[in-house]
Amino acid sequence: MHHASTRTLLVAPLIAAAAVASAEPLPSWEDGVSKRAIVEFVARISREDSADYVAPRERIAVFDNDGTLWAEQPIYFQFAFALDRVKTLSSVHPEWRSTAPFKDVLSGDTRALVASGQKGLLQVIAASHSGITTEDFDTIVGSWLATAKHPRFERPYTELAYQPMLELLDYLRSQDFKTFIVSGGGVEFMRVFAEQVYGIPPEQVIGSSAVTKFVAVGTNGKPALIKEPQIDFIDDGPGKPSGIDRFIGRRPILAVGNSDGDLQMLQWTAGGAGPRFVALVHHTDTDREYAYDRDSQVGKLDKALDEAQRQRWLIIDMKHDWRRIFADNGE
Amino acid sequence: MHHASTRTLLVAPLIAAAAVASAEPLPSWEDGVSKRAIVEFVARISREDSADYVAPRERIAVFDNDGTLWAEQPIYFQFAFALDRVKTLSSVHPEWRSTAPFKDVLSGDTRALVASGQKGLLQVIAASHSGITTEDFDTIVGSWLATAKHPRFERPYTELAYQPMLELLDYLRSQDFKTFIVSGGGVEFMRVFAEQVYGIPPEQVIGSSAVTKFVAVGTNGKPALIKEPQIDFIDDGPGKPSGIDRFIGRRPILAVGNSDGDLQMLQWTAGGAGPRFVALVHHTDTDREYAYDRDSQVGKLDKALDEAQRQRWLIIDMKHDWRRIFADNGE
Repeated sequence: MHHASTRTLLVAPLIAAAAVASAEPLPSWEDGVSKRAIVEFVARISREDSADYVAPRERIAVFDNDGTLWAEQPIYFQFAFALDRVKTLSSVHPEWRSTAPFKDVLSGDTRALVASGQKGLLQVIAASHSGITTEDFDTIVGSWLATAKHPRFERPYTELAYQPMLELLDYLRSQDFKTFIVSGGGVEFMRVFAEQVYGIPPEQVIGSSAVTKFVAVGTNGKPALIKEPQIDFIDDGPGKPSGIDRFIGRRPILAVGNSDGDLQMLQWTAGGAGPRFVALVHHTDTDREYAYDRDSQVGKLDKALDEAQRQRWLIIDMKHDWRRIFADNGE
Repeated sequence: MHHASTRTLLVAPLIAAAAVASAEPLPSWEDGVSKRAIVEFVARISREDSADYVAPRERIAVFDNDGTLWAEQPIYFQFAFALDRVKTLSSVHPEWRSTAPFKDVLSGDTRALVASGQKGLLQVIAASHSGITTEDFDTIVGSWLATAKHPRFERPYTELAYQPMLELLDYLRSQDFKTFIVSGGGVEFMRVFAEQVYGIPPEQVIGSSAVTKFVAVGTNGKPALIKEPQIDFIDDGPGKPSGIDRFIGRRPILAVGNSDGDLQMLQWTAGGAGPRFVALVHHTDTDREYAYDRDSQVGKLDKALDEAQRQRWLIIDMKHDWRRIFADNGE
């Protein structure tokens, strides 16, 4: 149907991928152990005459975000946003030029910034994430996502979602799963793009949050919620099962993470009665993405890797299990 | 089709009600201003060619629970549970017989209990709601709901859901709304019955919560979440818009409450751009339920009533707008 022109040659792989997608699930996954494990689990819980049958309303699937659904190197993308935001705001904060940690952000002194520790980090997050209404924050994040580019891949951050994981989300939803994000990232940051990029609506995004303050009459004369510089909930580590309990109120039957911050979420999921599917995304691909685990500053995977090996959870090997990493990677 | 037997006579009204339900929405609502306002609003936001059209994913409807979806007199039903639970637990807490506020619960001295104020109330809630796993708590609440009866109506509390509100929830869902509870009540208490009674799944129930602590190895050798005696979030008053923002992440287009604790939720809903529907349930029916507003200890409706009158929000008059209150009320 298509004549071979330059344009056709460029789009042909995408058209081919779309055609495969409608024919069989998970086209960006190699036909190996990982893909088979996923498809077999879904088949197992879907057979109504089986003891392992799970009713659709109980088909809750939870996913970490950074390093699981999209990349997280060399720094968490939300932190890249925070640094850019501090630079933007510095024009109205001249005092930042001589105050740590802001001066380190402005001068690009990453080592000094890291040395400022959690206190410095929280100051950067507070300065970049609070003192504005929730609606203004959404607008600011949306503008940043539309313009900022990843330093290595030189494309918008939202194009660094993992194509195989997007297919997994779609596949699960086609099998009546309800998909949730359960991330240490800020809930309001993720909600700006989660529906468009992942097909996950705001009410199915669980993350860390700051206190918000209601004012009946905001600056525009209407009610507003102001983001306060005070952490409300850290959805990481043992906070993840608590977050799942608070927001979802059911135990997931499927969970995927990639770091030690996901360990308790995976344990909580695995510990339920009946069939459970628990997996780790293991970053093993220096060429197409990154390779890191036990010694990484970002997305450290050590205890959870030991536990996955002990419990025989699925360990997804990005280099060998995934035909492509991002939507526009060649095969 | 039915011959008139005693049994047929008894069930005939129910069959008739079901038949009407499939034919037209809101059969337990009188054909008056309130019903018309609801139906007209839904029609208005559903017309795709209209400037007021709202896409299905934005059709978020929020409902208070106590006094809005089910009754709340003479005391909040969750507080009745707490009192019964203290009585049950008193056999292993002999010291409670001489310690306020527990001795007042055990002797039924409501006046002394009220005099113990918020501190006493929180002690009763902590003693009855913490120190157990989330799963054990669900079981305990389920057993209580199956056996406890309302002092006046002498039936299970779950039968005191308002039939017209159940029809409203169904009607909205049939028009692609996603229905949420946003209540000052405990989120885990409500989730035990919300799906069965209201058709609202656990992940769409927002409420007050206590801190939960994750333990990787619980008493049964499996991971558990322990309910701690520490309040995490109060989903009442200005907490309601914050809770909506945190859990849903979209602003509702429809909200119904019944007391001053709902005022900010209604303001937040009304303050959004585009068409909004905001209503109060006004308890006006001493014969079939209760009549109370500005001076009530439970479900006080004063400031929100003033605001509703000022803003011309719909005020649902239970006595005149509802043909029946509960499922088995006659017309």
